[in-house]
Amino acid sequence: MKRSERLVDMTQYLLARPHTLIALPFFAARYGSAKSSISEDLAILKHSLAIHENGILETVAGAAGGVRYIPFLGEKQTASYLTGLAQRIQDPSRILPGGFVYLSDVLGSPQDLRAIGQIIATHYAYTQVDYLMTIETKGIALAQAVSKYLNLPFVTVRRRPKITEGATISVNYVASSSDRVEKMELAKRLLKPHANVLIIDDFMKGGGTMNGMEELVKEFECHVVGRCVLCETQFKEPRRVADYLSLININRVDTTNKKIEANVGNFLTQTDFDRF
Amino acid sequence: MKRSERLVDMTQYLLARPHTLIALPFFAARYGSAKSSISEDLAILKHSLAIHENGILETVAGAAGGVRYIPFLGEKQTASYLTGLAQRIQDPSRILPGGFVYLSDVLGSPQDLRAIGQIIATHYAYTQVDYLMTIETKGIALAQAVSKYLNLPFVTVRRRPKITEGATISVNYVASSSDRVEKMELAKRLLKPHANVLIIDDFMKGGGTMNGMEELVKEFECHVVGRCVLCETQFKEPRRVADYLSLININRVDTTNKKIEANVGNFLTQTDFDRF
Repeated sequence: MKRSERLVDMTQYLLARPHTLIALPFFAARYGSAKSSISEDLAILKHSLAIHENGILETVAGAAGGVRYIPFLGEKQTASYLTGLAQRIQDPSRILPGGFVYLSDVLGSPQDLRAIGQIIATHYAYTQVDYLMTIETKGIALAQAVSKYLNLPFVTVRRRPKITEGATISVNYVASSSDRVEKMELAKRLLKPHANVLIIDDFMKGGGTMNGMEELVKEFECHVVGRCVLCETQFKEPRRVADYLSLININRVDTTNKKIEANVGNFLTQTDFDRF
Repeated sequence: MKRSERLVDMTQYLLARPHTLIALPFFAARYGSAKSSISEDLAILKHSLAIHENGILETVAGAAGGVRYIPFLGEKQTASYLTGLAQRIQDPSRILPGGFVYLSDVLGSPQDLRAIGQIIATHYAYTQVDYLMTIETKGIALAQAVSKYLNLPFVTVRRRPKITEGATISVNYVASSSDRVEKMELAKRLLKPHANVLIIDDFMKGGGTMNGMEELVKEFECHVVGRCVLCETQFKEPRRVADYLSLININRVDTTNKKIEANVGNFLTQTDFDRF
């Protein structure tokens, strides 16, 4: 097979397997090529990905070595996407009764989910994560988008018991918006003990739901290694959660004058793009 | 930029934008290359994708022409994945009380969702679809996976009213398993009238839920152009839905002897892989 054809196939193969070490002999066998040719191919691939700040090809030296594709979106592209998203969120037709913001279109758009997934995966590219966790319903699309780029399984916490989950572990939590005590649960077999869990959700107001998921993680004898939400919204009292990332910050929803004020959240300042 | 570097970037660019026509002058400008060089690049790309039966590059001739990447998984790879999945589903530890089958691990695995998304998208690659529709909660992961490869938005029907959706349209339906009348609803602004809708869900037993979604589509003055489920299960009475695709067929769940019988559904025989 010619170099040009190998490069197309290699790109496709690596993109479909993020964060997975592929040994050089695998590619050598796949294309019937010498290892030295494969090494040259990979150098080209690495360079081309780097130019467009869209993913990194990591080389792991030694006998057990190979290459690993790390999805990554550069600071400029991230800032430009998030600024555009904040502007779209300011559209007054998104205001719902009770000061809620309509986001179902964003959470059902493959191009938005692709960008959001890449952006969040960039921050956690070198964090030791075993599982992503989210809560039904809107968080699922986000967790799945990130799961794809970190190549990690995601688990969905239920707000209501389900007959198709088997044994579960549940916790009570205080929903910040209603101040009511609610229950959330997760299928027992979904998390292994001592695993590292990254929590992802669509909205955070008081942090009650996030706090509940954190309690649930502890009940599974696992550790929370990160918290990331698409939108944080204004909240008068102190938040129940301190250390989190937000992609978008919704400062104000004025239902009377039909105005939403949204800007980029703390994600950009909290992410070290230069590590890559 | 060299051909080899262009090819890596083009592959990545096209893979991120399935079913989207990209004009040749776009690539010519992106790389500062002559159109004739770009044409040669695309011929190489087309050939390389075809060899591995993993996607097609369609060429559209004429002034408004260009190329379009169509995700596609060949018959052999599809059969091999589905056979493996059926075997995994036969694991007796998946049996839940009431004869339900535990599938949350599959629906949270990025590699499974990648394969399932590509497989379903292959069947509907040339169907005129505007939206994918699913129902919370487990269908979401599947709809999103397909959405990515067809590059189409997906909408999520709710079983329970939500304050973050705005105005909704609702229908009543008879859940086949309980024979109870239930309600499902969809945010009014999510579907435009006269659109073509592909319905995707995780399970189908009697078809009651599928039938409900179909009624909902009609209430939006839209058309159902396809129905696809991950698993169909045995059902004694005649199904409420006739024309559907299933990836997996669960013939029997024997809770007494702890046995599940599963095999590949009607998907393989109903899909014309030779169109590609």
